[in-house]
Amino acid sequence: MSTSQTIRLGLIGAGRMGSFHGLTAARHIPGASLTAIADPSHTQATRLASALGVQKVYTDPQQLLDDPDIDGVLIAAPARSHAELVIKAARAGKSVFCEKPMAVTLDEADRAIAAAADAQVTLQVGFNRRFAKSFRTAHLDVAAGRIGTPQLLRSLTRDPALNNPATSPQWVIFLETLIHDFDTLRYLNPGAEAVEVFVMADALIAPEFKANGFLDTAVVTVRFGNGAMAVAEANFQAVYGYDVRGEVFGSAGMLCMGSVNESDLLRYLATGVQADTQRMDTDLLRDAYIAELNHFVDCMRSGEKPLASGEDARAALAIARACIESFEQGKAVRVQGVAS
Amino acid sequence: MSTSQTIRLGLIGAGRMGSFHGLTAARHIPGASLTAIADPSHTQATRLASALGVQKVYTDPQQLLDDPDIDGVLIAAPARSHAELVIKAARAGKSVFCEKPMAVTLDEADRAIAAAADAQVTLQVGFNRRFAKSFRTAHLDVAAGRIGTPQLLRSLTRDPALNNPATSPQWVIFLETLIHDFDTLRYLNPGAEAVEVFVMADALIAPEFKANGFLDTAVVTVRFGNGAMAVAEANFQAVYGYDVRGEVFGSAGMLCMGSVNESDLLRYLATGVQADTQRMDTDLLRDAYIAELNHFVDCMRSGEKPLASGEDARAALAIARACIESFEQGKAVRVQGVAS
Amino acid sequence: MSTSQTIRLGLIGAGRMGSFHGLTAARHIPGASLTAIADPSHTQATRLASALGVQKVYTDPQQLLDDPDIDGVLIAAPARSHAELVIKAARAGKSVFCEKPMAVTLDEADRAIAAAADAQVTLQVGFNRRFAKSFRTAHLDVAAGRIGTPQLLRSLTRDPALNNPATSPQWVIFLETLIHDFDTLRYLNPGAEAVEVFVMADALIAPEFKANGFLDTAVVTVRFGNGAMAVAEANFQAVYGYDVRGEVFGSAGMLCMGSVNESDLLRYLATGVQADTQRMDTDLLRDAYIAELNHFVDCMRSGEKPLASGEDARAALAIARACIESFEQGKAVRVQGVAS
Amino acid sequence: MSTSQTIRLGLIGAGRMGSFHGLTAARHIPGASLTAIADPSHTQATRLASALGVQKVYTDPQQLLDDPDIDGVLIAAPARSHAELVIKAARAGKSVFCEKPMAVTLDEADRAIAAAADAQVTLQVGFNRRFAKSFRTAHLDVAAGRIGTPQLLRSLTRDPALNNPATSPQWVIFLETLIHDFDTLRYLNPGAEAVEVFVMADALIAPEFKANGFLDTAVVTVRFGNGAMAVAEANFQAVYGYDVRGEVFGSAGMLCMGSVNESDLLRYLATGVQADTQRMDTDLLRDAYIAELNHFVDCMRSGEKPLASGEDARAALAIARACIESFEQGKAVRVQGVAS
Repeated sequence: MSTSQTIRLGLIGAGRMGSFHGLTAARHIPGASLTAIADPSHTQATRLASALGVQKVYTDPQQLLDDPDIDGVLIAAPARSHAELVIKAARAGKSVFCEKPMAVTLDEADRAIAAAADAQVTLQVGFNRRFAKSFRTAHLDVAAGRIGTPQLLRSLTRDPALNNPATSPQWVIFLETLIHDFDTLRYLNPGAEAVEVFVMADALIAPEFKANGFLDTAVVTVRFGNGAMAVAEANFQAVYGYDVRGEVFGSAGMLCMGSVNESDLLRYLATGVQADTQRMDTDLLRDAYIAELNHFVDCMRSGEKPLASGEDARAALAIARACIESFEQGKAVRVQGVAS
Repeated sequence: MSTSQTIRLGLIGAGRMGSFHGLTAARHIPGASLTAIADPSHTQATRLASALGVQKVYTDPQQLLDDPDIDGVLIAAPARSHAELVIKAARAGKSVFCEKPMAVTLDEADRAIAAAADAQVTLQVGFNRRFAKSFRTAHLDVAAGRIGTPQLLRSLTRDPALNNPATSPQWVIFLETLIHDFDTLRYLNPGAEAVEVFVMADALIAPEFKANGFLDTAVVTVRFGNGAMAVAEANFQAVYGYDVRGEVFGSAGMLCMGSVNESDLLRYLATGVQADTQRMDTDLLRDAYIAELNHFVDCMRSGEKPLASGEDARAALAIARACIESFEQGKAVRVQGVAS
Repeated sequence: MSTSQTIRLGLIGAGRMGSFHGLTAARHIPGASLTAIADPSHTQATRLASALGVQKVYTDPQQLLDDPDIDGVLIAAPARSHAELVIKAARAGKSVFCEKPMAVTLDEADRAIAAAADAQVTLQVGFNRRFAKSFRTAHLDVAAGRIGTPQLLRSLTRDPALNNPATSPQWVIFLETLIHDFDTLRYLNPGAEAVEVFVMADALIAPEFKANGFLDTAVVTVRFGNGAMAVAEANFQAVYGYDVRGEVFGSAGMLCMGSVNESDLLRYLATGVQADTQRMDTDLLRDAYIAELNHFVDCMRSGEKPLASGEDARAALAIARACIESFEQGKAVRVQGVAS
Repeated sequence: MSTSQTIRLGLIGAGRMGSFHGLTAARHIPGASLTAIADPSHTQATRLASALGVQKVYTDPQQLLDDPDIDGVLIAAPARSHAELVIKAARAGKSVFCEKPMAVTLDEADRAIAAAADAQVTLQVGFNRRFAKSFRTAHLDVAAGRIGTPQLLRSLTRDPALNNPATSPQWVIFLETLIHDFDTLRYLNPGAEAVEVFVMADALIAPEFKANGFLDTAVVTVRFGNGAMAVAEANFQAVYGYDVRGEVFGSAGMLCMGSVNESDLLRYLATGVQADTQRMDTDLLRDAYIAELNHFVDCMRSGEKPLASGEDARAALAIARACIESFEQGKAVRVQGVAS
């Protein structure tokens, strides 16, 4: 694809994240434009299209995939539909940026990867930490040996407020939230793969939903092939804001990433020192969200494999699936190898 | 101006800041487009235009001002030409975003303000701190009385590296650098005006240029009409990076703003804890630069007076002019009133 | 014991920690004096006694325990001897401050607690975090409900340099290092007890000692009776300094404690921002070490139970013993109840 | 004086600071004891003596100076009496630790220095920042050239609450508060002396006392002989706590010192991130206060000149006196040279 041509993107899913990705695609990606939006809710799709100056609106994603004026798609539909959409998009010859998780079963993941490979389209997954300045620099530092061999890692995600526990699918904490942390741990321990996990998890915020399989708090211990040991941690109700942090400790030092502070303003008051906090992932990680879509368009042009690939999605999913097993069995579980 | 129409911007000056503003205008301002670029260097203008997909290139700014397809201009030419360009642009019916300083004499400033008023165009000045998250929040806090009555203020600007002292115009430290701090002090002490200044300044980095009137280090004490006392400070060679900080202390608390850290990454190494720093104003204040141009376009549409107005530019300039006088006379000097 | 009398302390063990406690007892405890020192190395005991102006030196601790001029003893002998020394001291009618661990088996711990109870002497254990300002305030905050119900906790200890792995007793990482973290987790989750643990541990720094049962890196997941989940983590070679941190996250907020920085000095250099770090526990926790001995003397006078009691030592030990079992069996293990 | 003998100290003044120094001398100075206390209030002297186990109490300081069992005195009487007490103590052959200011006129200062020199006794002044870890390290860094040549400095002192403005002597802000900052600036710019000052000062907190010459807020600009420019700043009502900070910027970097935070505890709450602050100088600078008295006793033994000498007191006073002149005349004023 020539660098002079505008990349035409289509958005599938006009919910909260879809709207944010749509806005980013429409405004902040040099050399790209948002051309079409598909959402089962015609109202929602139309409203977003109007706000962003997008002409085409579809209710069926297949219509968007059939549109010859679209080069790549951004998938921000419900998680359970991701893999099938990736496969259909690839078959339609479209490059795909898919929000995490790319798939919820390893089989789905394998088929999605294969479909993109067969169609020779770009396939990128929405692992935003990889594009956050501090996490990206940490990854490069570790890869360059700046802290020696990784021995202990930590990644955590805490949402500010519980979101629809009643209608939430099972295992959402592993498949949709901790999937970020599993990827982050791999990113901060480059070249190594998870081999074993042990899960402690519970419904501490909303115990009334535990019977439905809804867990809101989890601590996962992960052992990697290079000996490093890691903890991934999630909770769905951090009253102080959106909390995303990482830590990697090695034989020659440690790197710590993540701050919940909204800006560098500090208030010194009679009640002590105070700082405001970020409440939205789209504020906390805004630059990362913009960077990942720019990277997607760059990879579409260059043909290079994205920094957050289908294989990365598969590897993080393998950890998440092992977590479900560990939770159900109450014991440590082997992670199913990357080469399935 | 209708909200549905695209605002067409022209850029005057394709140097470092001009290129940055051009990029921002071309990429990050919803509802605006960059339509033309003027620069005496045809090569430079053409190179930037090509990079940003801009069609029209001029060598004479008047050509750009005569172009009927332009609604507003961004002035990023040398400081000494700003006021005349503002006046010409206003006469041509164009709204104006002018990099600081808007003018270098109070008479020029008055004429620029009058021209914009006569033409009923928007006139905004590039006081970027007003659009930086922490400074903006601090301003609102002070205005809301959250720290009581301001008593002591501080604003500083330190550039990472001395820039062309040989060809630099006289008093650049007051007219082009500290002008930011004078505006910041006014912003953090809303409703009050500077009444007196005292300057200590010297050429400590490059004493060989002192004979030419080039000062590289300055400490300015400012007394405000409401009794508050302030310090503005500048230096042109901070080896650790671009340093912009503010502090406002009042009867009920203190606010501190500004961090030189590049990201929230901390490295813990055998040599201690380490963090990388920002080296460029366009990195340190990137979001503020984007916000100020968005605000300009918003004001063009709404007709509202910008948060950084011609009158603000005039008031900061009055402090800078008093500084020159204080330096030359070696004593405290009254600031010429806003109502001239 | 009357408040007007000086409390006369005897020190058992003149190694690194013994010397430090001896210095503290001799210098920083109003109303107390260091009267005697016992150490198998006469040279070492004499050297310390001379430095601190202490008159009596013994090579056998029993001699010190038989000395009628001593009211209380500070036990800083090798860990394996602690419990027997506590029992003997109690039988001799001396109050006891015992460095952690108070015992290495639960049976020993029970006998030590019983001996102190029978003799009606004060028994305090060297859990220093309980006396560190930030950890102490955090404990009080949690107890006061300031962060709601604890849900996730973290405590970590990282030593700056591996210390004698060849001669180190087995399980030292659990019994002597993480014992601090197990106590800290209990301290930060007041009223709750650990019910289950899962261990991942390895010899990553010095794999050549793994065959001897020497582990240098461990991650322990702990489930508490109130549902809270915790991680305790240790490593024996943090090149950046002595690292002791804690975190407690609850339904209404989070508390974070621990900084490796040596002072509040920040250096801004061409290489970035830099801070020096603490390399010694006796520097990092100096105030806590002084406070715990003052507390011991206060409790001797008042007859109140110390903030770090024999029962606390037993409860932390129960977690450590469960960790050994979990490590050996490779699975989650129940913690033996406090009421044995 | 032999190292084996206990140094016997006498305290003159049993007010707030005197009590604190008395406590430090009684408890935290190895090899020293507090032997006598003198205060015009017999009640106050007796109460303190009883609390600290001190036998001798005097109401007239001369009685204490005549006591042959005293080697050195700690002067914590009202500032206006300091110089005369230093002179009398020196004549009585006692070494002297004198709280700042050592004198309030340059003539007094010269006579005090001469008296100590004639009597060959140690004379140390209570410039506590010199013994605070971060300020001390900064001084050594600057002296070692680690940040190149100093160009810009800042030192500030903000008390948490206005203290007796009605009965306060004139110019207390310069002679008793900013005297610390003037010394700190000299300490951070080793080898250079202040040559010129300019003052802006006012009664902003308590304007009703301005007529009595009571100023509560001041900004002082100081030019040093090596070209460096400095700002000293004081205010008597910082609602957030006791605020002592320093900054030194040089050709190769910057050092920043001072934190108002009480401990390393951070609270993350629904209202943002919060930290407690220090409210007392004796908490904020506790270690420095202990270190300075230890240094005094060390200098008494070794005969070395203290790090905070009579000459340092004189040099800081010369700046304070110039400030009074600058304030009265409303212009920049030369500082009277050190060589008087």
